[in-house]
Amino acid sequence: MIILRSVIGDELRRQRLEQGRTLREVSAQARVSLGYLSEVERGQKEASSELLAAICGALDVPMSKVLHSVSTQLADEERPRRSDVTSAA
Amino acid sequence: MIILRSVIGDELRRQRLEQGRTLREVSAQARVSLGYLSEVERGQKEASSELLAAICGALDVPMSKVLHSVSTQLADEERPRRSDVTSAA
Repeated sequence: MIILRSVIGDELRRQRLEQGRTLREVSAQARVSLGYLSEVERGQKEASSELLAAICGALDVPMSKVLHSVSTQLADEERPRRSDVTSAA
Repeated sequence: MIILRSVIGDELRRQRLEQGRTLREVSAQARVSLGYLSEVERGQKEASSELLAAICGALDVPMSKVLHSVSTQLADEERPRRSDVTSAA
């Protein structure tokens, strides 16, 4: 099963690393604890709507952009794999 | 501020009503309580990744499709309104 919080966490980390920023910087700006942000990025904790908004704000990335990217990745993972299609035939 | 869970809740309710299904039917199929589904639809409770997947499964709608629609609605709401643009000028 695809776990949404893992896909969101990966995307948040990708955005942060793309900007060359540390967990410490982004967590301080978002006013969340470093440990919490780290857990969210690793898909170990669900981010509430308010905290996701705060993290996106700190990254200066619209939440719509993060979720659009997440939906694209989910669509890729939902697509049946070649092996599944073969075994179903 | 845009609250993600409200946008997700609205989208889940829209999908359910489009199918002419009741809260009772969908909650039973998703194995969540009727009260919980109702709170999620009204944006009063965050759906965990697992429960969102279960609700999407019960609605037979890919989670990617729900999130794509959500991201589009968020993008609309994030766009500065005409009045904001005028007052900034």
